[in-house]
Amino acid sequence: MAMANGRQVRKRIIIIGGGFAGINAAIGLAKLPVDITLIDRKNHYTFQPLLYQVALAVLSPAEIAQPIRSILRDHRNIEVLMDEAVNFDLEKRRVDMKTGVQLEYDYLILATGSTHSYFGRDDWAKLAPGLKTIEDATEIRRRVLLAFEFAERQMQEAGTHPPLKFVIVGGGPTGVELAGAISDIARLYMTRDFRHINPADAQVLILEGSPAILAAYPPDLQQKAVDQLAKLGVSIRTGAHVSDIQPGYVMIGSERIDATVTLWAAGVQASPLGKLLHVPLDRRGCVIVDQFLNPPGHPDVFICGDLAHVEEKGTQVPGVAQPAIQMGIYTAKRIARLVAREQGSDGSGLSEPFHYFDKGDMATIGRKAAVANIKWPFHGHWSGLPAWMVWLFIHIAFLIGFRNRLAVFRQWAWTYLSFEDGARLITGSQDLPGWDSEYGREQNPAPAEAAVETKST
Amino acid sequence: MAMANGRQVRKRIIIIGGGFAGINAAIGLAKLPVDITLIDRKNHYTFQPLLYQVALAVLSPAEIAQPIRSILRDHRNIEVLMDEAVNFDLEKRRVDMKTGVQLEYDYLILATGSTHSYFGRDDWAKLAPGLKTIEDATEIRRRVLLAFEFAERQMQEAGTHPPLKFVIVGGGPTGVELAGAISDIARLYMTRDFRHINPADAQVLILEGSPAILAAYPPDLQQKAVDQLAKLGVSIRTGAHVSDIQPGYVMIGSERIDATVTLWAAGVQASPLGKLLHVPLDRRGCVIVDQFLNPPGHPDVFICGDLAHVEEKGTQVPGVAQPAIQMGIYTAKRIARLVAREQGSDGSGLSEPFHYFDKGDMATIGRKAAVANIKWPFHGHWSGLPAWMVWLFIHIAFLIGFRNRLAVFRQWAWTYLSFEDGARLITGSQDLPGWDSEYGREQNPAPAEAAVETKST
Repeated sequence: MAMANGRQVRKRIIIIGGGFAGINAAIGLAKLPVDITLIDRKNHYTFQPLLYQVALAVLSPAEIAQPIRSILRDHRNIEVLMDEAVNFDLEKRRVDMKTGVQLEYDYLILATGSTHSYFGRDDWAKLAPGLKTIEDATEIRRRVLLAFEFAERQMQEAGTHPPLKFVIVGGGPTGVELAGAISDIARLYMTRDFRHINPADAQVLILEGSPAILAAYPPDLQQKAVDQLAKLGVSIRTGAHVSDIQPGYVMIGSERIDATVTLWAAGVQASPLGKLLHVPLDRRGCVIVDQFLNPPGHPDVFICGDLAHVEEKGTQVPGVAQPAIQMGIYTAKRIARLVAREQGSDGSGLSEPFHYFDKGDMATIGRKAAVANIKWPFHGHWSGLPAWMVWLFIHIAFLIGFRNRLAVFRQWAWTYLSFEDGARLITGSQDLPGWDSEYGREQNPAPAEAAVETKST
Repeated sequence: MAMANGRQVRKRIIIIGGGFAGINAAIGLAKLPVDITLIDRKNHYTFQPLLYQVALAVLSPAEIAQPIRSILRDHRNIEVLMDEAVNFDLEKRRVDMKTGVQLEYDYLILATGSTHSYFGRDDWAKLAPGLKTIEDATEIRRRVLLAFEFAERQMQEAGTHPPLKFVIVGGGPTGVELAGAISDIARLYMTRDFRHINPADAQVLILEGSPAILAAYPPDLQQKAVDQLAKLGVSIRTGAHVSDIQPGYVMIGSERIDATVTLWAAGVQASPLGKLLHVPLDRRGCVIVDQFLNPPGHPDVFICGDLAHVEEKGTQVPGVAQPAIQMGIYTAKRIARLVAREQGSDGSGLSEPFHYFDKGDMATIGRKAAVANIKWPFHGHWSGLPAWMVWLFIHIAFLIGFRNRLAVFRQWAWTYLSFEDGARLITGSQDLPGWDSEYGREQNPAPAEAAVETKST
C-alpha cells in the first residue's frame, strides 16, 4: 500500500470488533485514503439474528458465519488481525494488544458488542448457555439433541422416562425464537426418528421476569405472540424471577421447575472493553456517548453497536442489529468528514448528529409465524404468515455474502418443504448437566406420574 | 411393531457401529421380518472419504454427516440407540451397554471400524491429530487456520515470522489428500486474505516410513502422485521414521524438523471392541474371521468393515470403504438365508462365501489431480484431471442422502469456480501446540534466516 504522499499523511483507523457495527464502519471507510486495522478475537463475522437456527440444527455454522478476512479482502487498505485489545491510552491514542503489539490510531472505533449477563451468577453459565457465538449455538444444539437421545436410552432401559422439559429463561426475541424452534424440531422434524419416545411430548417453557414477553413490542403483538406460541405448545410464565439454576432444574423462589435443558436468553451486558476506556458507563457497562457517538471529551473515539449508550428523544437506542449497522455507517461518514476538514474542506456536515432510523422489530415464532412491528416504509402490526415472510425476506437480504444468501435460502426452502432439518449433529462431549454422562441416567428424576408412556416394541 | 406371529418368533439382530458396514447391513436387513437395533456412540454417520475436505474448510460437517436416525427412519423394524457396548457374552448371546441395558440377540454384527494408532505413543495424539471423526476434522481445520493467523500476528509484532510448516506423518491416501488440500488452500484460497504474510509460502511435508507413498498403488501411479504433489509444492520424505513429536517440531532419529502444525495419517488400529469378544485377533486388533465373516465357532456373530481381518487369495482385504460396504451387504444377505432356512427353506446359497469385489482405489491430490487404480469396469491407471473427475463422480454417487449429494456438488462447483472455500471458521480454543496461546508467539522459533519476508505496510 505504498502511496505517493507517504504513510505519515494517511490517517490510521483502528476498529475493534467485527460485528454489524465494525464491518459496516470498515466498508464505509474503505474508499478513503486511510489505513484501517480491524481487530477481532474470532476469525469470523457471525450473523447473530440467525444463530438460533444453528442452535436448532436448521442451518450450519458456515451458512451464517464468514471469515472477516474474506469479507474485507478486496479492500487493500484494510488489514484484519485476530487479536484482543487489553488496554487503551486515549491521550496517546494507543491500543495495547494481548500479543504485546502497540497500535497507534488517529481514530478509534470500539464496537465489541455485548455478552450474556447472569446477574452476578456466573456459575449459571455452564448450566444455562446463552446464544451469542457459533460455539454457543453448537453447544445448545448438542444439549437439545442429546436430551432426546438420553430419553430414548432411558425408555430402552427402564420403559419410562421423565418428561423432556426445555426451559428458556427470558422472553425477549431470542427466547421466543428459541422456544418456537425447539417446539418445531420436536413436533415436526424428530417424530419419525425415534421408536420409544414421542419427541412431540417435549415441553417448552419460557420464564419471563417482567409482566409480558417481547417487552419492546406493542401489547397487541405481544398477545399475538402468546397466541402463536400457545399453538406450538409453548408455555409462558411471566413475572417469574429465576432465583437459582441447578443441574436438572430451575428455582423460582421456592418452587422447583424441572428442566432437562435450560437455556439463557435473559440478560445482556456490555463487552468488558468499555471499562478500559475510563469514561462514564451506564449500569449495564455501555459507554455513554454524545450525539456523535463520542464519549465526552474524545472526538476521535467512536463507540458503536451494543456497547454504545445512545439516547434518541430520551429513549435508549436498543442493542439490536439495525442501530449497530447504522452507527457503523454513520461513524464512517463522520470520520470521512473529519479527514476532509483536515485536508482543507469546509467541514460541511460536521454538525450532523447520529440519528437512529427505526424501521421496526420482528421476531419469528417457529415455522410460518412471526410478529412484526413495522415502522418503515409504512406503519403496521403484522403477525402470522405475512410477518414470517417479511422476516424471511429481510434476513436473507441482510446476510453478508451472495453465496451465504443462496445457501440459507436453499436450506430454508428444503427444511420448509421436506421437514428435514439440515445439521442435526451432536459433536463434542456427551455431558448434559443433571445427567450421568457415563450412564445416560437423569440425576434428578422428576415424579414418576409425570413419565411419558409411549409405544414400546 | 406388533406382529401377528408375536415377538418371540422374530429374530433379534444387533448391529454395533453406524459406519459404511453397519448402515449397509441395516438397510439390507430392513425388509426381513426381524427386529434390528443399531447402536453407535455418535448420533451421526460420517462419510469418511470426504472428512479431509471438512478438515480443510471446503465442506461443512453437516454436508458429509447425517443423523443415523434420519438415514434409517423409514425402516420401522430398525431402532437406533446412541450408546456404547462394554461387554459381550457370546454364549448367552448378550451385549451389555454402558448404560446398564442388556440386549439379547440372535445375530450380532460388529462393525466398529478402526481408530488411530500412535504406535504406543498416545501422548502424540494431542500434538498430531488424526482424521477419523467430525471432531477430528474441525480440530485440524482449527489448527491449520490458526497457524496462518498466528503468523500474521507475528509479522505485525516483529516484522518477521518463522516459516509455516505443515508436517503430515504418513503418506497413505489420507496423508496425500491432506497435503494436497493444505497446499491448495494456502496457494489458492488464502493469498488474497492476508496483508503481511504470504500464505503461498507455507511448506507442506509428508513423512512416510516406507520406501514409497501410496503403498497400495502400482509404482507408475506412485510416481504420478509424487509428480503431482511436487507441482503443488508438497515435499515428500520416504523412509522417514518419526521417533518423537513435540510441540513445534518432529524428530526423525536425531534430526529435528520444525512443524507449525503436525497431522497424523500414519497408523490405524482396530476398534478396541474386538478384544471383548475373546476370539483370535491379528496384531492390529482386527478379528480374524472365516469366509462367512464369522470368528471361529460363532456362526451367529459377524465382523464387518475395518474391524474384520478377511483374507482373499492370501491377501488381507484392505480397511477402506468398498470392502466395508460389501461386507455389510453380504452379512445382511447371509443372515436372510440363515433366517429363511430356520423357517423351512432349503438353505440354498448358504455355502456362498464373502468375496471382495475390488473396483480399484483412488486418491485426490488437491484440485484437479488424482491417481486412480481402476480395476472395474475396466483396468486402467489414471492420473491427473481424468482421475480427479472419476473421483468426483464416485464420491458424490456414494454419499448417502439426495440432499447431501446436491449440497456437496454445489459447494464443490462453487469452490472450484470461485476459489472461495466454504467453511473457514476457527471455533473452540485458541491453543496451538508449540505456541503461547496467550500471546500468539511461537515457543520454538525456527532459525531466523528461514524467516519469510513479505510486503509490509
